[in-house]
Amino acid sequence: MTSATVGATISPMEINDIPRYMAHVGAAARAAAASMAKAHTAQKNAALHALAIELRQRQEALSEANQQDLDAAGHRGLSAPMVDRLRLTPKVVATIAEGCEQLAAMPDPIGEITSVKRRPSGISVGQMRVPLGVFGMIYESRPNVTIEAASLAIKSGNACILRGGSEAIHTNRALAACIQAALASAGLPLDAVHLVQTTDREAVGALITMPEHVDVIIPRGGKGLIERISAQAKVPVIKHLDGNCHVYVDANVDMALAVRVTDNAKTQKYSPCNAAESLLVHRDSAAQFLRAIGAVFAAKGVQMRCDEEALQHLQSVPDADLRAAQADDWSAEYLASIISIKVVASLDEAITHINHHGSGHTDAILTRDHDNAMRFLREVDSSSVMVNTSTRFADGFEYGLGAEIGISTDKFHARGPVGLEGLTSMKWIVLGQGEIRT
Amino acid sequence: MTSATVGATISPMEINDIPRYMAHVGAAARAAAASMAKAHTAQKNAALHALAIELRQRQEALSEANQQDLDAAGHRGLSAPMVDRLRLTPKVVATIAEGCEQLAAMPDPIGEITSVKRRPSGISVGQMRVPLGVFGMIYESRPNVTIEAASLAIKSGNACILRGGSEAIHTNRALAACIQAALASAGLPLDAVHLVQTTDREAVGALITMPEHVDVIIPRGGKGLIERISAQAKVPVIKHLDGNCHVYVDANVDMALAVRVTDNAKTQKYSPCNAAESLLVHRDSAAQFLRAIGAVFAAKGVQMRCDEEALQHLQSVPDADLRAAQADDWSAEYLASIISIKVVASLDEAITHINHHGSGHTDAILTRDHDNAMRFLREVDSSSVMVNTSTRFADGFEYGLGAEIGISTDKFHARGPVGLEGLTSMKWIVLGQGEIRT
Repeated sequence: MTSATVGATISPMEINDIPRYMAHVGAAARAAAASMAKAHTAQKNAALHALAIELRQRQEALSEANQQDLDAAGHRGLSAPMVDRLRLTPKVVATIAEGCEQLAAMPDPIGEITSVKRRPSGISVGQMRVPLGVFGMIYESRPNVTIEAASLAIKSGNACILRGGSEAIHTNRALAACIQAALASAGLPLDAVHLVQTTDREAVGALITMPEHVDVIIPRGGKGLIERISAQAKVPVIKHLDGNCHVYVDANVDMALAVRVTDNAKTQKYSPCNAAESLLVHRDSAAQFLRAIGAVFAAKGVQMRCDEEALQHLQSVPDADLRAAQADDWSAEYLASIISIKVVASLDEAITHINHHGSGHTDAILTRDHDNAMRFLREVDSSSVMVNTSTRFADGFEYGLGAEIGISTDKFHARGPVGLEGLTSMKWIVLGQGEIRT
Repeated sequence: MTSATVGATISPMEINDIPRYMAHVGAAARAAAASMAKAHTAQKNAALHALAIELRQRQEALSEANQQDLDAAGHRGLSAPMVDRLRLTPKVVATIAEGCEQLAAMPDPIGEITSVKRRPSGISVGQMRVPLGVFGMIYESRPNVTIEAASLAIKSGNACILRGGSEAIHTNRALAACIQAALASAGLPLDAVHLVQTTDREAVGALITMPEHVDVIIPRGGKGLIERISAQAKVPVIKHLDGNCHVYVDANVDMALAVRVTDNAKTQKYSPCNAAESLLVHRDSAAQFLRAIGAVFAAKGVQMRCDEEALQHLQSVPDADLRAAQADDWSAEYLASIISIKVVASLDEAITHINHHGSGHTDAILTRDHDNAMRFLREVDSSSVMVNTSTRFADGFEYGLGAEIGISTDKFHARGPVGLEGLTSMKWIVLGQGEIRT
């Protein structure tokens, strides 16, 4: 461990006293945040370009560090998907380096002034976009999150404290060295991005309970982790719980489109949170549509958990893996080759079902009917609502945010994919010429 | 008490079992919120116009109910300012009725679609403004908050649960009857606005700990109340703590403007949170400015708590009430005819002082220097930052928000005066023509 990876002002000696160490890290981040908030756009972009170069140049060192973690993962008996997420291949490095450059090319969100209006009193009132300050990121496995979080912090003028999983500590330290070098080359404070150097859980407890130093916590991981953090945190948490995403196939629909999009939403990848888990079909489309999509699912080995009416339509499909749906299937996030299927009598029934059983993540209607499309957009209370396209598009990159720090299933502050703007807030600015209140 | 004031679905019988009563109120509000979210603009405006009419027509009943509370206040020994805030004069009723009509005249924030952009994949991605859902309001004394909260809830398509102080219960019940009549006349659900019928404190504890029914809590009252609620709440809180507002008088300044604006910021009213509590003066302006403002403050009996340098400049002012400032004066919110005064060597010192000692509420620079004005706007980390005008303008009505549900000193979600938009959030909408993700 070099002093650069520890940060500018913290000596490795202090790390064993965790409360003292975390208070030190917090205070240093808070101080760095003030510099980051007023950093010039060119300086922030220079740091992002430098980070891309560092990542490419240190490819070999990164691979070696990653191999250490992969070797340890074998000894620890980590699951195959966990090991897979841990792997930092040259291709992943190339992608995250490119991500830094894409972020550099985006407009600076900070300092944006909007909606300035003259008031009858003579003052002009508007809003200015400013950084939130310091965010804490708690995540597992995937070391690319280290670079995504750091690069979003740099561009959005925030400081961040990163707490990666112990299984990725060597990789994360090697990545942090790239970040420190990039910050230094651009003249930005090294404390703007701090990788927590201890894997002790006490550090997480400290990170989420220092409102004087940390403005928001963004956890990425399993539902259990996120619920635990939300319950204990003394600062706001941008949280992402379930993704129980629905596709609703309306009465009047382009059948070929409906089959193509439903297939994509369910089967393009099973593990992402924006994959469809539940299919609702209007009674008028059910016979024709369910036979068609049933054949696709049967061919791909997708298990269908159906209500009675859907079951009747699907029974004639050869090789279909059919089950009767149980009550808890309607709320389930399978993240697997399973889908629940229900026939509904109306758009109203579909909307009510989604608002009751859904998780407020992403839901789509497939329809030719303009009124129904507009009602679905307005009335489904989810962070992303879609017409005639796949739920799999619910993603910061696909939405044009450049990168995504997480997905929020909350309503407060940020909803859905959270990019640069989710790490900012708007303050009021008032421009006067000596007006007084009477 | 009529059943209309209790709400549509709750019998007075249940009110004594507080956990059951509050769960019932919460569930009813959650159900009403779904109807409110899709209510037509014309319907919401009709309810607001009806509310204005009800308030004017029931003037006599309102006065009688208010007199009951005022009589009780006498027996209870409420403080004079408390009794003053409790008083619902015909003039106050006229003002709140007019406020309802002004809100009706404003554009409907709900359903606004912004920033729809085509993405390379072919999908169009934008955002739609939607209500937060259900908000809980906890407040003391001032019964006009009942109407302000109800009218903002109606216009923003939310449901709300109102918990006023026990000292205003008769007035609040009479106002709630007006609200129920207005909702009924517009065909909106009566449960959209529910006044909590019990003054038992257990009801507050229940209200702030039911995330399944309530999306956000807005407390209005003393700092102690707000801190207690924030510590115990299981849902987000839009909170307003101190208002330690600063006026900074720069080196290059229009002296007449500086005196007029500083005087207004401090003395136009002493009790509001946006009144100035601290004055910073650049050394180059100190001699001339402090003598001028010192004379104004001396004439109005404003006590000046000064650092050593300010004290020297002010000692020659006749009848000035001067004290040496103590360390805690720099963080104090006096809400009284007292101001702290400090001479600074530079804009940097002023910004650092404000960001350290301020409360993130409202701070103003008075200057002729464009660069300094822009730096102050960017670098002072407060919810309202102002140039050449009085901090007293930090107010939802003065900002053109129509009305204000409160002022937030948080950075998350809403900052500063919170109006209709602060009661909404943006969800993502995606419009496709059959695109799939590859």
